[in-house]
Amino acid sequence: MTDLHFLSTTTTNGVLEREFTLGDDIHGMLWSPPAQTGPLVLLGHGGGRDAKALPMVGRAQRLVAEGFHAVAIDAPGHGERPRTALDDEQIAAMQEAMSTGVPVGPIVVPYNLHLAERAVPEWQATLDALERLPEIDGPFGYFGLNMGTAVGVPLTAGDPRIAAAVFGIFWYDGTLAEHARRIKVPVEFLLQWDDQHIPRDSGLALFDAFASTEKSLHANAGAHKEVPRFEVESMVRFFNRHLR
Amino acid sequence: MTDLHFLSTTTTNGVLEREFTLGDDIHGMLWSPPAQTGPLVLLGHGGGRDAKALPMVGRAQRLVAEGFHAVAIDAPGHGERPRTALDDEQIAAMQEAMSTGVPVGPIVVPYNLHLAERAVPEWQATLDALERLPEIDGPFGYFGLNMGTAVGVPLTAGDPRIAAAVFGIFWYDGTLAEHARRIKVPVEFLLQWDDQHIPRDSGLALFDAFASTEKSLHANAGAHKEVPRFEVESMVRFFNRHLR
Repeated sequence: MTDLHFLSTTTTNGVLEREFTLGDDIHGMLWSPPAQTGPLVLLGHGGGRDAKALPMVGRAQRLVAEGFHAVAIDAPGHGERPRTALDDEQIAAMQEAMSTGVPVGPIVVPYNLHLAERAVPEWQATLDALERLPEIDGPFGYFGLNMGTAVGVPLTAGDPRIAAAVFGIFWYDGTLAEHARRIKVPVEFLLQWDDQHIPRDSGLALFDAFASTEKSLHANAGAHKEVPRFEVESMVRFFNRHLR
Repeated sequence: MTDLHFLSTTTTNGVLEREFTLGDDIHGMLWSPPAQTGPLVLLGHGGGRDAKALPMVGRAQRLVAEGFHAVAIDAPGHGERPRTALDDEQIAAMQEAMSTGVPVGPIVVPYNLHLAERAVPEWQATLDALERLPEIDGPFGYFGLNMGTAVGVPLTAGDPRIAAAVFGIFWYDGTLAEHARRIKVPVEFLLQWDDQHIPRDSGLALFDAFASTEKSLHANAGAHKEVPRFEVESMVRFFNRHLR
């Protein structure tokens, strides 16, 4: 079993921030309330971003203020991790589709599910290491939109340590829905009502697939990238309800 | 212009509760934080209930704790108000449909819209009287599910004093949707994902009709009457965002 290696430790505004590596491939950030044990929320980043992206840091700070620990790791091909030839090819295809107005779903969905196959074992190795830290105590939650949903749905379906999850802003897909049908923990699911990339019915069908008896869809007016800021507060309350 | 007539005044757990009448027909409850000015939230009750129903009192107490005033009035044919022959006939038809498993929507929708035609002018007269009270200060919000939506949608469409509204648990209907298309204030809309009475697409279509640039659908797993309790807290936060 591999141990976490902490590269740096800083404390800013009451948030202990530790950059870490695990084995050869995993690089991430761990945010903690100093000297406080508590549950851990996994933050899955979106495509093209990484563990240090500003939205991750903002969510982590809000979670730490509520006594949670939060962790993010770079997905394969993201951050400073090397890209494969397939990564380059898929990213170019996405950019091509975006610029010509062709639907991106048929490219994003299979590519993100491919990345998820590589990312899920990395998340599990990270959890194995983190749960040995004395300050991590209690169940885990998962938050991830966009690509963070493609990774988080199979992760949550297969890892009983995750007790509640926030997903959303992703397409229906048969394989993903099979994973969703195995998820019974509470789920909050975000959808943008006027998403220019994800057909409304596709998002609704993915929400419908979860087997959870407690699941809530939050569909907000606005385009793909216009998820309202108040959903961060909703996420915090959701984890307060389910991880305590 | 008619004045409010207060029948009784009691203060319990920091909530000033006043029962009032206005003219010959209107009977209601006004809940206030003692000696505090603030915005007012209108609470529209569901079918078969009235202004004193327990869910209304519970929501009013939560709102008062946040510094809001809250008001409810009995809909026509509800509470101690006399029923017309049409009221009796429609209520019997609904009970018949419920007991035989026939869809109730085709009975509930036109009957509730008929009640709304009678209820909207009563709400407006109530607002005319309440806005003259010195402690009522700021914009109005409206909360009402079920029949409370049938009444609140035309009321909000026609009364510019209402600056934010929570609706839901109701069917799509052409006339109601016409009113919804005139509503531009922020809307939070509740839908039960497994509603045994309201087809999912019908509720989604009603949400879609609102012209508001800020609107949020909260669709929760569960049957018609299983709206989760945490939606009360969401409603309070919604009004805190929009009535301050």
